[in-house]
Amino acid sequence: MKRTDLSKLPCSIARTSNLLGDWWTPLVLREAFFGTKRFDEFIKRLGIGRNVLTQRFSRLIDEDIFVRIQYQDKPPRYEYHLTEKGRALFDVLAAMIRWGDDWLAEAAGAPIELIDTASGKIIKPMVVDAKTLKPIVQRNIEVRKGPGFPSNLKPR
Amino acid sequence: MKRTDLSKLPCSIARTSNLLGDWWTPLVLREAFFGTKRFDEFIKRLGIGRNVLTQRFSRLIDEDIFVRIQYQDKPPRYEYHLTEKGRALFDVLAAMIRWGDDWLAEAAGAPIELIDTASGKIIKPMVVDAKTLKPIVQRNIEVRKGPGFPSNLKPR
Repeated sequence: MKRTDLSKLPCSIARTSNLLGDWWTPLVLREAFFGTKRFDEFIKRLGIGRNVLTQRFSRLIDEDIFVRIQYQDKPPRYEYHLTEKGRALFDVLAAMIRWGDDWLAEAAGAPIELIDTASGKIIKPMVVDAKTLKPIVQRNIEVRKGPGFPSNLKPR
Repeated sequence: MKRTDLSKLPCSIARTSNLLGDWWTPLVLREAFFGTKRFDEFIKRLGIGRNVLTQRFSRLIDEDIFVRIQYQDKPPRYEYHLTEKGRALFDVLAAMIRWGDDWLAEAAGAPIELIDTASGKIIKPMVVDAKTLKPIVQRNIEVRKGPGFPSNLKPR
C-alpha cells in the first residue's frame, strides 16, 4: 500500500502528521525526552525491533529532529540527541498527554504525571492562545489562507 | 507487518498515538473541525480513497470520536459529527499546527491561519501549564508514576 506524501500539503497538521504518523515515532520522542540516548536503551525500554528503530532514527535525523553523536571510538558507538526542533515537539506530546489523560485514562487517573523539578508540583498541559492565554474554543475559530499558502493552489 | 497495539500501554502518548497514528486520521479531524460533515465531501476535500475513509470512520466511531447521524431517509444518508471527546482533540491538532508553523513552514509564513471569529484576531496556539499559564520547559520536567499506572508493571 502506497503511503501518500503529506509533507507537501499546505497544512501544518498534514506535515506534522507525516512525521509523527510513523507508529513508533512519538514513543521514541517520549524516551528521548525522558533522557534515553543510546540505541540499545531505546530498544530495551520500548520493546521495538532494531530494524524499525534504525529506520525511524534515519528519518528523524534527515528531518533534523535528532543528531547522532559518537561517544566511543573502538568500537564506534553513538548517542541520539534531540535538536532544538526535536525538543520543541514536546509541546505536541504534552497536548497528547493531556487529551489521553482526560479521555483515555482509567478511572484511577493518569498513568504518568509530569512534575516540575523546581517546584515539585504536577504540571498539567493546556493549549491556549499565546496572546490572551485563554483556552482555544474550536467553535469560535475559523481558518483562512496564510502567507505561506501556495499561490497556485485554491484554498478551501 | 503486524502493528503493535499501543492502546494498552500505561502512557497517554502511546494511547493517543495509537489513535492519531493512522495516516489520515488527523486530516479527517481537521476537515471535521473546518465544518465538513458528509462522506463525499470528506472524499472530495482530502482526495482520500472511499475504503480508507470508511475504515477510519468505523474506527473513530468505535472510539467515540465521531457519531454517525442519518440526515435523509430515501436513500439513507449520514453525516459524521464530532463528539465532545472528538472536539477536545482540537488542542492536539492546535499544538501540531504551532509546531508545524514554527519548524516546517516556508519562509513566507504559515500556510493557514486560525482566526478568532469574535475578535478577528489571529490565534497562535501555545502549550502551557494549566495552573501557572507558563510555557512548559521540557528540561525542567520529570516523570513519575501516576495513580492510573498498573500496579503489576514496573515504572521506568
